[in-house]
Amino acid sequence: MSGKNIVVNRVNTIPLGKQYVEIVERKGIGHPDYIADAIAEAVSVALSKEYLKRYDKILHHNLDKVLVVGGQSNPRFGGGEVIQPIYILVSGRATIDVKRGENDIDIIPVGSIILDSAKKWLKNTFRFLDTERHVIIDYKVGKGSADLIDIFEREEKYPGANDTSVGVGFAPLTKTEKMVLETERLLNSKKFKKRHPAVGEDIKVMGVRRGNHIDLTIAAAIVSSQVSNVYEYLKVKEEIIREVKELAVSIVEDMEVKVYVNTGDNPSRGERGGLYLVVTGTSAEHGDDGATGRGNRANGLITPFRPMSMEATAGKNPISHVGKLYNVLAYNTAQRITELGNVEEVYVKVLSQIGKPINEPLIAHITINSEESVFNSIKKKVEEIVEEELNNLNKLWRDIIDGRVNLF
Amino acid sequence: MSGKNIVVNRVNTIPLGKQYVEIVERKGIGHPDYIADAIAEAVSVALSKEYLKRYDKILHHNLDKVLVVGGQSNPRFGGGEVIQPIYILVSGRATIDVKRGENDIDIIPVGSIILDSAKKWLKNTFRFLDTERHVIIDYKVGKGSADLIDIFEREEKYPGANDTSVGVGFAPLTKTEKMVLETERLLNSKKFKKRHPAVGEDIKVMGVRRGNHIDLTIAAAIVSSQVSNVYEYLKVKEEIIREVKELAVSIVEDMEVKVYVNTGDNPSRGERGGLYLVVTGTSAEHGDDGATGRGNRANGLITPFRPMSMEATAGKNPISHVGKLYNVLAYNTAQRITELGNVEEVYVKVLSQIGKPINEPLIAHITINSEESVFNSIKKKVEEIVEEELNNLNKLWRDIIDGRVNLF
Amino acid sequence: MSGKNIVVNRVNTIPLGKQYVEIVERKGIGHPDYIADAIAEAVSVALSKEYLKRYDKILHHNLDKVLVVGGQSNPRFGGGEVIQPIYILVSGRATIDVKRGENDIDIIPVGSIILDSAKKWLKNTFRFLDTERHVIIDYKVGKGSADLIDIFEREEKYPGANDTSVGVGFAPLTKTEKMVLETERLLNSKKFKKRHPAVGEDIKVMGVRRGNHIDLTIAAAIVSSQVSNVYEYLKVKEEIIREVKELAVSIVEDMEVKVYVNTGDNPSRGERGGLYLVVTGTSAEHGDDGATGRGNRANGLITPFRPMSMEATAGKNPISHVGKLYNVLAYNTAQRITELGNVEEVYVKVLSQIGKPINEPLIAHITINSEESVFNSIKKKVEEIVEEELNNLNKLWRDIIDGRVNLF
Amino acid sequence: MSGKNIVVNRVNTIPLGKQYVEIVERKGIGHPDYIADAIAEAVSVALSKEYLKRYDKILHHNLDKVLVVGGQSNPRFGGGEVIQPIYILVSGRATIDVKRGENDIDIIPVGSIILDSAKKWLKNTFRFLDTERHVIIDYKVGKGSADLIDIFEREEKYPGANDTSVGVGFAPLTKTEKMVLETERLLNSKKFKKRHPAVGEDIKVMGVRRGNHIDLTIAAAIVSSQVSNVYEYLKVKEEIIREVKELAVSIVEDMEVKVYVNTGDNPSRGERGGLYLVVTGTSAEHGDDGATGRGNRANGLITPFRPMSMEATAGKNPISHVGKLYNVLAYNTAQRITELGNVEEVYVKVLSQIGKPINEPLIAHITINSEESVFNSIKKKVEEIVEEELNNLNKLWRDIIDGRVNLF
Repeated sequence: MSGKNIVVNRVNTIPLGKQYVEIVERKGIGHPDYIADAIAEAVSVALSKEYLKRYDKILHHNLDKVLVVGGQSNPRFGGGEVIQPIYILVSGRATIDVKRGENDIDIIPVGSIILDSAKKWLKNTFRFLDTERHVIIDYKVGKGSADLIDIFEREEKYPGANDTSVGVGFAPLTKTEKMVLETERLLNSKKFKKRHPAVGEDIKVMGVRRGNHIDLTIAAAIVSSQVSNVYEYLKVKEEIIREVKELAVSIVEDMEVKVYVNTGDNPSRGERGGLYLVVTGTSAEHGDDGATGRGNRANGLITPFRPMSMEATAGKNPISHVGKLYNVLAYNTAQRITELGNVEEVYVKVLSQIGKPINEPLIAHITINSEESVFNSIKKKVEEIVEEELNNLNKLWRDIIDGRVNLF
Repeated sequence: MSGKNIVVNRVNTIPLGKQYVEIVERKGIGHPDYIADAIAEAVSVALSKEYLKRYDKILHHNLDKVLVVGGQSNPRFGGGEVIQPIYILVSGRATIDVKRGENDIDIIPVGSIILDSAKKWLKNTFRFLDTERHVIIDYKVGKGSADLIDIFEREEKYPGANDTSVGVGFAPLTKTEKMVLETERLLNSKKFKKRHPAVGEDIKVMGVRRGNHIDLTIAAAIVSSQVSNVYEYLKVKEEIIREVKELAVSIVEDMEVKVYVNTGDNPSRGERGGLYLVVTGTSAEHGDDGATGRGNRANGLITPFRPMSMEATAGKNPISHVGKLYNVLAYNTAQRITELGNVEEVYVKVLSQIGKPINEPLIAHITINSEESVFNSIKKKVEEIVEEELNNLNKLWRDIIDGRVNLF
Repeated sequence: MSGKNIVVNRVNTIPLGKQYVEIVERKGIGHPDYIADAIAEAVSVALSKEYLKRYDKILHHNLDKVLVVGGQSNPRFGGGEVIQPIYILVSGRATIDVKRGENDIDIIPVGSIILDSAKKWLKNTFRFLDTERHVIIDYKVGKGSADLIDIFEREEKYPGANDTSVGVGFAPLTKTEKMVLETERLLNSKKFKKRHPAVGEDIKVMGVRRGNHIDLTIAAAIVSSQVSNVYEYLKVKEEIIREVKELAVSIVEDMEVKVYVNTGDNPSRGERGGLYLVVTGTSAEHGDDGATGRGNRANGLITPFRPMSMEATAGKNPISHVGKLYNVLAYNTAQRITELGNVEEVYVKVLSQIGKPINEPLIAHITINSEESVFNSIKKKVEEIVEEELNNLNKLWRDIIDGRVNLF
Repeated sequence: MSGKNIVVNRVNTIPLGKQYVEIVERKGIGHPDYIADAIAEAVSVALSKEYLKRYDKILHHNLDKVLVVGGQSNPRFGGGEVIQPIYILVSGRATIDVKRGENDIDIIPVGSIILDSAKKWLKNTFRFLDTERHVIIDYKVGKGSADLIDIFEREEKYPGANDTSVGVGFAPLTKTEKMVLETERLLNSKKFKKRHPAVGEDIKVMGVRRGNHIDLTIAAAIVSSQVSNVYEYLKVKEEIIREVKELAVSIVEDMEVKVYVNTGDNPSRGERGGLYLVVTGTSAEHGDDGATGRGNRANGLITPFRPMSMEATAGKNPISHVGKLYNVLAYNTAQRITELGNVEEVYVKVLSQIGKPINEPLIAHITINSEESVFNSIKKKVEEIVEEELNNLNKLWRDIIDGRVNLF
């Protein structure tokens, strides 16, 4: 296949969803690690758009190391305060000086873009976090330079990979995986928040399946200003359990689902440490730190029973950073192969070679768990899909910039 | 088994080492992510020792979010300088105020301990990094308090888990995995450094096996003061290749091994960007950032073809932080089971339940890839090993503090 | 006089306004040093109000070390951008933990108060500075504790001085001093800004008088978005000159006044460095740093021909910090003495003794430049005024908190 | 006089030393404000030397805003610890990129130079401060560029003033001023430290003279590891008093001198807050902040009864920064005039004009307090001295770099 080093294998094992045990986790949109991912990506997108606006081209940058340092807060029923704001440090590199011609140097307002895009994401995400009072956003971004003439001269159809790294993806999701994903989405949906404004954005869902029994352990930060006492707090927890159980019926109708919320609570100690109360919606307000790349993988889940990439997708530039592109490609490819039908599981792993065109990986390895006959009938199609996706890598940035791609 | 929720399963699949493709990575001790892990752990260990010295007990802390922000350097053959130091931010929480009795409050010199232990690790690790000139170490650590009387009163044999999280481990290593691990160890060994002082500490090894062919792609920072020109630089690369090939003979004698070093080099551009030159031994000196938990797993490798935990082991306290303890336990347990003999592969996954005693996980799931007869003969022994390891969790901290446990 | 150590002397020298040479300076409200003073004070006032609201008492704090680190900007005619935001570090100490009773500890949300009050001041002061995009406010404030029971028990009528330090004041202002003060006030008045929106808040006025000739050298940052080209820029400068000359007629009607604006300009180089253009209204946006206590003295001026105190008044608590209280007292006292009539000049210097009640200075030294007969007739009255002002020191905080006292 | 705008006046007033009251202060070398000055200057000198070494020319820089943020410590008799290190932020601007020719750009290792020179100063100054454990040095320095060809082309004999600002100086010192200055020098001399190692470097001396009675109030930090108990502490205070009184005999033999040390002490509370104990030698270890330009003027004193400049001399470049040069010039000039004999007091004030050659001030104003006949006989000589000193301004940097000039 055209020098693309595509290897397609078949295995025939019991698919994960049919094995006896499964563990799946999702960190919700208000979790400190998610915040770190989301801000890294928001800044990368804003910067990319600025480059596009000015030069019709995304210039080099990498902002995949954001640190969220937890603050200190004092939640109280019906109110509460942030004592020490959350401190967020955006770090990485970006092209700041752009040479358009002799003595014509553009300077990109990177600092303003970072502050602006990070705060916008926070404002759009949290209902009770005041970006003026509850957060300090700082940055340490190394300055890169670019020469537009150079760039346009040596432009190639496929940029060289920035690193030697691996992307991993799989499909389809098991029912447990779907359940975990949808549980968080439900609890952070606009409609749910309207019904239950007290439920904060910091939600973590851990699902364990044993046979056809699922335990969902949910950590849900409850917003202190929205509950007046322990009883209201406990009522909110009951509502979460009720709605999640309703959701379960439509996803894992054939399984027994138990839902646990904030199991660490000790209501007898009340607001002084006995409950999971927050002022702003996130535990980052009180000592919980977060870092880019420490949370969900590109399909929105942490799946220790599945192959995973350790690469952060967030904050990397969508042009040449294979740690981002290959993970997205791997999930997309696995999904498309699944749709060919009669396939139990697909695993896709793609390894780049630093400097080589991004559409020419060192190896693209596809494992298909299916009957042999199915495998034989689709193998060629699979190779075509992989090649197509690889050749599409130089357009993927558009979907990423427009927010059409799930990254974490 | 005694309410421990231990589940032991058998599978019978082709072990990874016999499948057609394998990808394995190790980030060496000078890699920015490794630095972030190592400093987080060095600080945790130093703090633990201080607590032990004072109270014969490790108090609560969590320093698993260290950010290494790359500096700016100007390497030149025979010399070079650091323009902007590496900035390292240690973040997390620690017990600072310790109440011994009414009006008798001890204050732990956390700041001095952080600076001291971080710098000591850097000094012991890097030969060409001057901790006084090339690094700024800062910290943002939330202050915790403890009441010794309380602590000793409610002391239990097994502390409660600090979180709901998963540890994952497996054994044995495949030959490719061993090869990748040992390659980095060789290149960072004292003896090798003596023979080839120009080879920096920042080494990344990526191994890809296809059938019985292994490609080892090595990124090795070369110390600019130790090479005088391009020829010497190229000579060092040849030496790396030669020694790694020698090593290969003893580990993967039956395979064909190709070694690539700094494949991104463009010698025609020389020291101005065409070679992988550094002043200090690490790429963190020039724009490469690192973060705790973004590098190797507890067995020292990144193995995208294997189940992995996303938890950082580094920096967490070794008493109650299951993100640390369960990963160590999982690797130890898998290793011990392997030693029972005739087992192809062992996977161990352990999930905690926040607040429950650490030796009572929600589930400990062991998958054994072996003949059925083997499985039947060892199953009981396996359960005993798991239970033993779980019950040993309250002593594991000693090995961790003493540096007898591999964590990353 | 009642153990107050009040020393009143007479001198008979040529008053400054009648000497041949005089030099006077004022840093306007947008100058980086003024920003540092104003934010230090805004934070102190906000914190004081919070303490008052909670405990009817201002607790200990000292925030008199604010650093304004200049950013980087790119002003262009009709627009421009901030590349790197201004970084403002608020440092000092504040009472954060307040013990109301056994196990009843209040925590003051110091972080939120700092961010909020600093940003409010910036918003109220600058028309073109976006506090969300153009500024990063950070803080490093040491934590103090207080025990309310203790405080109310040992309460004394006059708190002890926090330090051994000197306050200095004088009156009346010379015409040159008035001219410098009023020039800045004019240029930063609402009405003027309406007429000439292009004139930024960062204005520095230096006045030199030789005989009855005054040279006013004005540095006035011009807001780039409000001028379209060099001609408009030059027009704005002319308008400043015209209006300041008009002002001069009413203040120094008998003198010849020359007004120079942005004398460093080199219009031939245009917006690229040849003019004093800013995006936000302050030169802090581009490399100019500021620090508390480096700007105007308590009468709003820097007067190198006059005795001055080196103490910063800004940011200190208004209860026991003599560096603040004694300077205010010195100017107030000098002013009141002047109003007794027929006095050429009054100088007041007051020195505290650490720990002694603030109304019992080590020495209060008043120098009166007047005829001997005048001196003899008012000496007793002067002593009464000094004593009165000293005894009023425990009420002065109210005027300070309410913003009725000029501090810089 | 050659377009230099030199104005020489005579006054005939009672010199300060003969007036009834005088107040003088000196902040010693371990005082937080002094630390901020000294580090600003150490960095400027180190940077200047680097520029000289490379280009035989000092390039533009300004580092006159250093902030020392106090840490937290726990001094105990015979020991003690630093809990939270002192944080020092060096801010300003420096030339980092130096263009030697087309495509030949030098980069100055500003970061390493800052860390190195700041730490060296600390190490040379403090005996008990461990720069590795007790201090964090960070910096925020704006990047400037220079084009060497440009610089050498437009080079002029006298650089243009960087700002419009005033330098002020006077001579001779009164006895009280000498006494205050020499007291600190004694207590911080090598010999004294050998005799009394417990006396820390943070010493503040406040002198008040009334008639011929001088009160010297000394705040002297006592190093906790060097005293075992309250009695030893009190003994050290007695030794200070004894030696200072001995010194007084040789300086103010005709006056009565009282010496007070650490008057705020409350020995009954012991090491827990009742004494002025420190671990490192400076109060910056526990909450006392410092900032460049807030301490001594260029003659080493704060003299509220004398004219003073508000400009910081420390950290400014010694080539074109009049805030530095004119203050040094003013003190030197005043001193030289005094040496002409029979002069009671000399005051020198020099005002620059931004952009004008530094040797052509807007005005140099000299006031001489002397008999008329003396004045007439020396006036011409005075003008010559002033002109000489002005013309010498382009060589003054050499003395400053070599440390032969007192600056604070």
